[in-house]
Amino acid sequence: MTAPSRAVDESAAADVDVVVIGAGLSGLTAAHRLRQFGARVAVFEAASRVGGRVASARVGGVHVDLGGTFVGPGQDRIVALADEVGVSRFPTYTAGQNVIRWRGQHRRYRGTVPPVGASLLDVGRVQLTLDRLARSVPCGDPASAPQAAQWDAESLGSWLRRSHASAAARDLIAIAGRTTWGCEPDEISFLHALHYIHQAGGLSAMLDTAGGAQEEHFVEGSHEIAVRLAAGLGDALRLDSPVRRVEAEGDEVRVSTDRETVRARTVIVAVPPSLRTRIEFSPALPPVQTQMSQRWPAGVLSKAYAVYDRPFWRDHDLSGQGVSDTGPAFITFDAGPAGPDAPGVLLGFIGGVYAREWDDLPLAERRARALSSFADLFGPKALDATGYIDQRWGAEPWVAGGPTAAPGPGAVVPYASALATPVGRVLWAGTETASRWTGFMDGAVRAGERAALQARALLSDPWTDDEQTGAL
Amino acid sequence: MTAPSRAVDESAAADVDVVVIGAGLSGLTAAHRLRQFGARVAVFEAASRVGGRVASARVGGVHVDLGGTFVGPGQDRIVALADEVGVSRFPTYTAGQNVIRWRGQHRRYRGTVPPVGASLLDVGRVQLTLDRLARSVPCGDPASAPQAAQWDAESLGSWLRRSHASAAARDLIAIAGRTTWGCEPDEISFLHALHYIHQAGGLSAMLDTAGGAQEEHFVEGSHEIAVRLAAGLGDALRLDSPVRRVEAEGDEVRVSTDRETVRARTVIVAVPPSLRTRIEFSPALPPVQTQMSQRWPAGVLSKAYAVYDRPFWRDHDLSGQGVSDTGPAFITFDAGPAGPDAPGVLLGFIGGVYAREWDDLPLAERRARALSSFADLFGPKALDATGYIDQRWGAEPWVAGGPTAAPGPGAVVPYASALATPVGRVLWAGTETASRWTGFMDGAVRAGERAALQARALLSDPWTDDEQTGAL
Repeated sequence: MTAPSRAVDESAAADVDVVVIGAGLSGLTAAHRLRQFGARVAVFEAASRVGGRVASARVGGVHVDLGGTFVGPGQDRIVALADEVGVSRFPTYTAGQNVIRWRGQHRRYRGTVPPVGASLLDVGRVQLTLDRLARSVPCGDPASAPQAAQWDAESLGSWLRRSHASAAARDLIAIAGRTTWGCEPDEISFLHALHYIHQAGGLSAMLDTAGGAQEEHFVEGSHEIAVRLAAGLGDALRLDSPVRRVEAEGDEVRVSTDRETVRARTVIVAVPPSLRTRIEFSPALPPVQTQMSQRWPAGVLSKAYAVYDRPFWRDHDLSGQGVSDTGPAFITFDAGPAGPDAPGVLLGFIGGVYAREWDDLPLAERRARALSSFADLFGPKALDATGYIDQRWGAEPWVAGGPTAAPGPGAVVPYASALATPVGRVLWAGTETASRWTGFMDGAVRAGERAALQARALLSDPWTDDEQTGAL
Repeated sequence: MTAPSRAVDESAAADVDVVVIGAGLSGLTAAHRLRQFGARVAVFEAASRVGGRVASARVGGVHVDLGGTFVGPGQDRIVALADEVGVSRFPTYTAGQNVIRWRGQHRRYRGTVPPVGASLLDVGRVQLTLDRLARSVPCGDPASAPQAAQWDAESLGSWLRRSHASAAARDLIAIAGRTTWGCEPDEISFLHALHYIHQAGGLSAMLDTAGGAQEEHFVEGSHEIAVRLAAGLGDALRLDSPVRRVEAEGDEVRVSTDRETVRARTVIVAVPPSLRTRIEFSPALPPVQTQMSQRWPAGVLSKAYAVYDRPFWRDHDLSGQGVSDTGPAFITFDAGPAGPDAPGVLLGFIGGVYAREWDDLPLAERRARALSSFADLFGPKALDATGYIDQRWGAEPWVAGGPTAAPGPGAVVPYASALATPVGRVLWAGTETASRWTGFMDGAVRAGERAALQARALLSDPWTDDEQTGAL
């Protein structure tokens, strides 16, 4: 694609039409779509790599996703984007039975909700109630829910206690919360939890493997999507380029890194909300932005992968999916590649209270504890890993945590609207700004595409005639 | 004072002994004490002025403190520092009666606790309980309180409801919380609230004027302390110099701004906790630091000052102290200068839920609403101000809020220890890191003095013999 021809007055014309800050999935998508619209784009990424909370590695000869991994029904935009760049999907392995370690007992089960004894009915009651309340929270506008003030005033944990949820129901919800938000139930606004559940289409859609958000993953890895988008951007993408200042004046925005200043007509900030204030804005952002940014912390979630000669659990009719009421790894999946002779791969999540302790350990100790969690679920063979790797998202300076934000009580009603509301020529992207599938890769793509449309609309001198090539 | 003579090898020697980042009261105090110890110091301040959350202005011919204002018994370090630089104190005006607007009624009273009808006994019960629980939270180590986990799991608001506090008690505590932390009771960890109350010597010491933390203010203004400390630093202080990177290698630390890199032997970071992550650290800070920084938000508190020809309320036996159960200004003080012919000055606090709305209004509207609050308490004469100024701390990019941090439920147990624990050669100051009078100017000074002592101890090659001139 070539930029549309236009008369250029060097003294006044912007260097590009849009600067995108952050080359995670959301920023890359925004830039990709804008180029398809015919816009001139520059993308600045602070880190040395693209992808943000999507990353990959090879271990024991196998590719693993260190960040965002799974996709499921309804996540149409990430799937469309992957199709567009030629990254393919395959089903998460789910054959056989799941396992649970609970109160010292070891049991097998099928489906999403594990058998937790007499409390199972109560777990069902809590899930139904959460789903019902969640449906009353409008997607993208949680503050307008009829009971918004009351629900924002308390945490998910406080609501569980107030609802007399059984200990088993509370512990299961805590596990779901650690995986989903990287926090404990007492840390997160109940209103935010409900909003998130509604956005994800309900608890089952959010937590299920087959039929849910963990249904498939990518053959080439999710990070390959980012890599291919970045390749398409060519030298419009600058790595190792933290943006220091965004200065808006008249109809121009100047974006400065340590090395250069680029003039643009609008800017899309596609970084996690808690990192927005690392950039100096002139004029200063309204107080509500500064306040929101301090109250929208990234969660605490880490991932551990163990590679085995073969997926030995499958021989015992086990799916590799496990749940445990102890840590550090408390949820597992079979994340191995397809194929009869492929090695076995177990993925374990370490989040919330467990991650805080585990993250600070040296690698050998983290490995030993993660493998020990796997052995608790799948037997001593799990100790004999041929490869091991983990990713502590809290240790990434330009990401600051994962998988997504976990705002606390009182933060949602006053601040949720600041997530996506443009400030003059400053537009916002990133999965936290999505009004569907926030927190997921799909939300990142949706937010990037929405920001690209906003940028196009904002420009009073439209650069597109019939040049659009993007299928938006 | 001259730096101690030493052999200098330009290729290896540090440029200074200590770099201090942030020229608020805490950083300035640290630098001041270190120079008294004979150390070579450089101080980098991101903003164009010193003082951080202490600032001043003149309005209607009168000096006003836009940030930290009052001092009281037990705040020995700020008082000692003020004495040292020749800034003097005078008592806050308290003669006469206080006023309260409550449930539409207007009443006069004496003392700290306003008459809220039949609920007064319950207010006393809640205060006694809070003081008693607070004493079980060790100062500087809240996570070691016997009930730390339980208290951190809930908010102050949730505890008030669970304790069946009356509506009046809840509303009064909300008012105290807005002034103290700039947040609503549902936003703040109950453990943090208790810890803060204990550090301040109990609710009465924290909230009282005569005999409490609002007993006196400074004749020349609190900001003058910062100005005089800065003057003493001379060209060791650089304004408009945001620090971008702190790189520790071996026994050297390199601190870089956009303009220069200074080598030092240790660095004191004296910025609010939520701003720590604006600096890139190499090696990266441990995850617990990144996580804490996202969970220790600055509160939301603004101040409005109105100046009058004379303090007309004094003519009616009123102290100028008022409390209201409506906003935007919900607490007032007579902040006028001493002297029989001096003009009158009313100070109103706008915080928490009120500040979020009020902060976004244009100046004329903020003025009208603040004066209207004053008139509700002191009559229509309060509308005839000859001067008006306000300060919205959330709009200050290098401060990000005020008066101090308001961590939410679940943040204190895992993260409080990260506030002051050194990371290698990186030391921490700022009032949030104090273990006495945190959140007050006195805490800022204490933290700065503690960090100066830590810096001195950290240096394996002590530069002091008997050169200490500081009275620490």
